[in-house]
Amino acid sequence: MTPFRLLHQSSTCAARCGEITTLHGTISTPVFMPVGTQATVKGVLPEELEALGAQIILGNTYHLFIRPGHELIRSLGGLHAFMHWQRPILTDSGGFQIFSLRELARITEQGAEFRSHLDGSRLFLSPEDAVHVQEALGSDIMMVLDTCIPYPAGRDEAARATALTGRWAARCKKALSGTGQLLFGIVQGGMYPDLRRQAAAELVETGFDGYALGGLSVGEPKELMLEMLEATVPHLPADHPVYLMGVGTPEDLVEGVYHGVDMFDCVMPTRNARNGMLFTSRGRLVIKNARYREDPRPVDEDCSCYTCRHFSRAYLRHLFQSREILASQLNSIHNLHYYCALMAAMRDAIAEDRFGDFRREFYARRETPP
Amino acid sequence: MTPFRLLHQSSTCAARCGEITTLHGTISTPVFMPVGTQATVKGVLPEELEALGAQIILGNTYHLFIRPGHELIRSLGGLHAFMHWQRPILTDSGGFQIFSLRELARITEQGAEFRSHLDGSRLFLSPEDAVHVQEALGSDIMMVLDTCIPYPAGRDEAARATALTGRWAARCKKALSGTGQLLFGIVQGGMYPDLRRQAAAELVETGFDGYALGGLSVGEPKELMLEMLEATVPHLPADHPVYLMGVGTPEDLVEGVYHGVDMFDCVMPTRNARNGMLFTSRGRLVIKNARYREDPRPVDEDCSCYTCRHFSRAYLRHLFQSREILASQLNSIHNLHYYCALMAAMRDAIAEDRFGDFRREFYARRETPP
Repeated sequence: MTPFRLLHQSSTCAARCGEITTLHGTISTPVFMPVGTQATVKGVLPEELEALGAQIILGNTYHLFIRPGHELIRSLGGLHAFMHWQRPILTDSGGFQIFSLRELARITEQGAEFRSHLDGSRLFLSPEDAVHVQEALGSDIMMVLDTCIPYPAGRDEAARATALTGRWAARCKKALSGTGQLLFGIVQGGMYPDLRRQAAAELVETGFDGYALGGLSVGEPKELMLEMLEATVPHLPADHPVYLMGVGTPEDLVEGVYHGVDMFDCVMPTRNARNGMLFTSRGRLVIKNARYREDPRPVDEDCSCYTCRHFSRAYLRHLFQSREILASQLNSIHNLHYYCALMAAMRDAIAEDRFGDFRREFYARRETPP
Repeated sequence: MTPFRLLHQSSTCAARCGEITTLHGTISTPVFMPVGTQATVKGVLPEELEALGAQIILGNTYHLFIRPGHELIRSLGGLHAFMHWQRPILTDSGGFQIFSLRELARITEQGAEFRSHLDGSRLFLSPEDAVHVQEALGSDIMMVLDTCIPYPAGRDEAARATALTGRWAARCKKALSGTGQLLFGIVQGGMYPDLRRQAAAELVETGFDGYALGGLSVGEPKELMLEMLEATVPHLPADHPVYLMGVGTPEDLVEGVYHGVDMFDCVMPTRNARNGMLFTSRGRLVIKNARYREDPRPVDEDCSCYTCRHFSRAYLRHLFQSREILASQLNSIHNLHYYCALMAAMRDAIAEDRFGDFRREFYARRETPP
């Protein structure tokens, strides 16, 4: 049985609305997942996340495996209880972070050998381990352990890594303990459409609760990312959720939805918030800019977030210039609200079958700066 | 007319309960004021401050004068609107911060010449300026510009600085524009009881809405601080609030109240929170300690704060070790709640005339570690 229910399908593009049912409740898609790497979405309390509309957050298995450790989290009741978050959680598998360690990691058929970025200790994660760690964490959606592919990569390298990801995915599925947690496969394939199609077909043959596209937004031109979406999404079963990992900008979200993507995650709203870059319906705003020194307006006059309801650009600029913690807090709330509200607006537009209009207006608005 | 109303007087010591009426509402005393140096209590949202029981916060005139500037804050509706805080605010005068600049500051009869710690620009603040800056900020309680005295200091130096503080205080009072903001005088006098008594008498002669003790908790032994309290408080009018500036530890608050102090402020709860030191009814707890690695208990089992209701010591330790912003947020909420709850417990004890018992129990509890 698939945990996904398709509710609306755009008549003019691949955009669609649906629901994913998990152990901790139902998620309306398309959805953006704020990133909570180390069992916290940086600078934001769980209740604030709920209030700004986050339906599900992402935790990073690699980080939690290294510190504080999945067994510690299990003994304290799982990740939900540990971090006081009652809604669904998706955990990645650690594959991307291990890949990012570069020379500190070695991939074999058996799994990934790597050194902790914290203390250099030698660690090992097999596909089975990745599942068992995520079972200990108690996330609602688990990801298979995958091998990532650098960009650019030759066809042989991409093909080898993609094939290994497929074998690991099958091992992950076999390792499941029947906890009711969902398991998603990851389509790799580099920038080779035929490898992507083939990987998708093999994963669908094995059978997962959802399918993710990995290895995109890794430095390639936007057009190439969209080409890979077009090459892959139509080959995934329409009755399963599609997740575009680690993506992206507001524009990426709109284009992803247009191409049929249901789920996204990215550090951009929170990381940019800490660096003073705010998202608005009219584009980006760099809060330290001198032009905001005396500006009594909210960041985005069309925004209903906590930050925009109560604070001026002048105050936010002051906090940022003064390196106050509250700058990170208020900016993160605003940016995450922007991302979640954008997804909600897309869900509404799809439900009313006006996603094409929505997309045109989204770009038209950006012609007037904030 | 005095803005202070005495409600209860302990029958066994100088401890007392009262109310101070300000432009933004009434404060129950004895009270602790969280410090919001740069128009934010570091890491805590205004609504969180209200929820943890903060009745009034402190803003630092020196910092706000330098950045973003009092005229900017005035143009944005004053400090309350700027930082989205509706309850009372006390602003200091900048005297202590200018004093802390040491060789960057020069005190003359006219006022304080100093260089900005941010950009080295030359600035000047007269007693009249200090009032006008605080009027621009729109605080509820303003402090006179004072000259601080290092510890240790010779009698002549202390006498000169104390006399100048008295003359400046009179100039501050004359500079008032009739805004309804309260103005407190500051008793200096170094560690010389007779200078303190004399300074108190002179200030009372001039007449202020309340009286503060400055230049304490500056490195002197605790006994000396208490001696200065004993030498000063009885010489202040009982129908005016008494404020012990920049103090202190939980023990200092209990002893201050015992000696008749009504108001306190200190960076300790927030600064220590950011450094992982948590206050509990059984004493201090250093959260990074390995013994808390798997500890499922809240920081303080007797505490009802947001942090203690939802998070374990193990989680807080993980956040602190991971240098997460949320560590500062949750620790600050807990420590400020501890301080505010301690004051509330003292108010209750005084109202029921059992402050002596309260004080004994306060120390007895600390014999069992947290």
